Amino acid sequence: MNMLVDGEWRTDAYESTDDDGEFDRQETAFRDRIRDEDGAEFPPEAGRYHLYISRACPWAHRAAMTRALKGLEDAISLSIVEPVRIDDGWEFSESYPDPLYGKEFLRDIYTKADPEFTGRVTVPVLWDREAETVVNNESEEIMRMLDTEFGDLAEHDVDLYPEGYEDEVDRIIDDIYDPINNGVYRAGFAGTQEAYDEAVSELFDALDHWESVLGDQRYLAGDVLTEADLAMFATLVRFDHVYHTHFKCNRRAIHEYPNLWNYTKELYQLPGIAKTVNVDHIVHHYYESHGDVNPKRLVPVGPDIDFAEDHDRDRLPGGPPEALFE
Amino acid sequence: MNMLVDGEWRTDAYESTDDDGEFDRQETAFRDRIRDEDGAEFPPEAGRYHLYISRACPWAHRAAMTRALKGLEDAISLSIVEPVRIDDGWEFSESYPDPLYGKEFLRDIYTKADPEFTGRVTVPVLWDREAETVVNNESEEIMRMLDTEFGDLAEHDVDLYPEGYEDEVDRIIDDIYDPINNGVYRAGFAGTQEAYDEAVSELFDALDHWESVLGDQRYLAGDVLTEADLAMFATLVRFDHVYHTHFKCNRRAIHEYPNLWNYTKELYQLPGIAKTVNVDHIVHHYYESHGDVNPKRLVPVGPDIDFAEDHDRDRLPGGPPEALFE
Repeated sequence: MNMLVDGEWRTDAYESTDDDGEFDRQETAFRDRIRDEDGAEFPPEAGRYHLYISRACPWAHRAAMTRALKGLEDAISLSIVEPVRIDDGWEFSESYPDPLYGKEFLRDIYTKADPEFTGRVTVPVLWDREAETVVNNESEEIMRMLDTEFGDLAEHDVDLYPEGYEDEVDRIIDDIYDPINNGVYRAGFAGTQEAYDEAVSELFDALDHWESVLGDQRYLAGDVLTEADLAMFATLVRFDHVYHTHFKCNRRAIHEYPNLWNYTKELYQLPGIAKTVNVDHIVHHYYESHGDVNPKRLVPVGPDIDFAEDHDRDRLPGGPPEALFE
Repeated sequence: MNMLVDGEWRTDAYESTDDDGEFDRQETAFRDRIRDEDGAEFPPEAGRYHLYISRACPWAHRAAMTRALKGLEDAISLSIVEPVRIDDGWEFSESYPDPLYGKEFLRDIYTKADPEFTGRVTVPVLWDREAETVVNNESEEIMRMLDTEFGDLAEHDVDLYPEGYEDEVDRIIDDIYDPINNGVYRAGFAGTQEAYDEAVSELFDALDHWESVLGDQRYLAGDVLTEADLAMFATLVRFDHVYHTHFKCNRRAIHEYPNLWNYTKELYQLPGIAKTVNVDHIVHHYYESHGDVNPKRLVPVGPDIDFAEDHDRDRLPGGPPEALFE
């Protein structure tokens, strides 16, 4: 296990499997909340918070996309770590420095927040410059806070958790997590054939289900774009370059599903999203970071696909928030 | 190197790369010829020769397909080795025994032919029961002998090296070897990113070329089926299940090339060919035999494709030998 144990860095295999060979993702540790209410410990304030992300990581991508769609770039600063993560975990570098403290590794940010911190050092990290601590490192919760707690600091009047859709959005985010978002990892890091077979079967059953739903519905929760779509997109946009080959999810590529592929292209083409997608960081991260899956760390050529080519989603009712185009 | 050295078995990495990280396939050793002429050392005789093959191996597949298309099943016996090849090289087993001598390993056949044999132990092996030796273990030469030297012992009047096409067939077999047949191995066993990049670029340039040729030509050499098509098919039929994922040849799958895919399906559907294709042996061999590429030896689910679905090649002039349908 490659992680902090009582503030000390231990280097071993980063990804762990349980006794049945099943990939076992550990819980995140910092779970405080930014709240737009009087007397909150972490109130929304422009310039106070910072996001540490990796352009490679699908969990961090949720936060980056929410920040872009809401227009929070001026309110919340963001920095990027080196794409490849080997023995020392996520690193800063000359090209991708820590803009706040000039630290060498992301783990130094965790131990700055809590010298006794124990656990995995992950992105995204929502950092409070004022309290000099990690507010939260759980991607769904950061996505929700950025979406719902920043009020007028958000430049775009975009609501990704719209009234009347809350239960449906929560349900879908929860439903797609295990078979899809984490399912690709369960396949790729499986320690036994049985664990792989189960993961990949659940993954493609779920993809087949959403392919069918998206045949006559524009977004996962209906006619409106929601946080659930960001969670789904973060996996789909990585699928054909990485999960299909590296994680052996090769029953079908996303570009071979007409509806999932057109849906992926529509989301990619929303204002602000393309610049959050860095295919170069994505492929170098996965293929070079996991020596136990790809021992020679060669990076494949990748598929001949273009996220910017025309999509057909305008055939369906609904559409993206108008505020994105103002 | 996993090979015989002066008749002794040495176990190391089976696949070797040179100083530039390029995969280096060694020459085969037994190069005698069956000849349909008076006084030949190895004349064509029914019941005299035996083929040792693996259903996994594309080189052995050329011999198995030639035997099937020519109708040489009664004249030349055939046996199959265990699909997975690990420390001891190709093995026999209870399910896949050595029918001639009851040996344990294919290397025992090589040392029976020559106790001092030095080199790689490969399939196909064309064995002479009478002289108790290996006639030849070079796949192109075995394909040619089975095609041209067995005269009336072949039940089908099928000529895969037809008069007037000889130079073209030889040229194409030679042309596709390096970028395609061996190109997938050069990509998959590359020891450096540069060696991989070069191999995969040459591979897809060559596939693009043949995709274009097959747009208005039925087979590689023109309107008639030849040995060149068998050489190409042996790679194409393995591509989407194995080379695309395991060897990282993931720019495009064969089923995404309209002409190559329909061509592959037509060849698969020729009488006698489908039974020479064992996808189960193919996937288990590659994914389980190469621990240096796939350390956990997990076997992926594989693509959702069907070699038996309709093809469109009848739109083009020419067609398969009529004798196959008599």
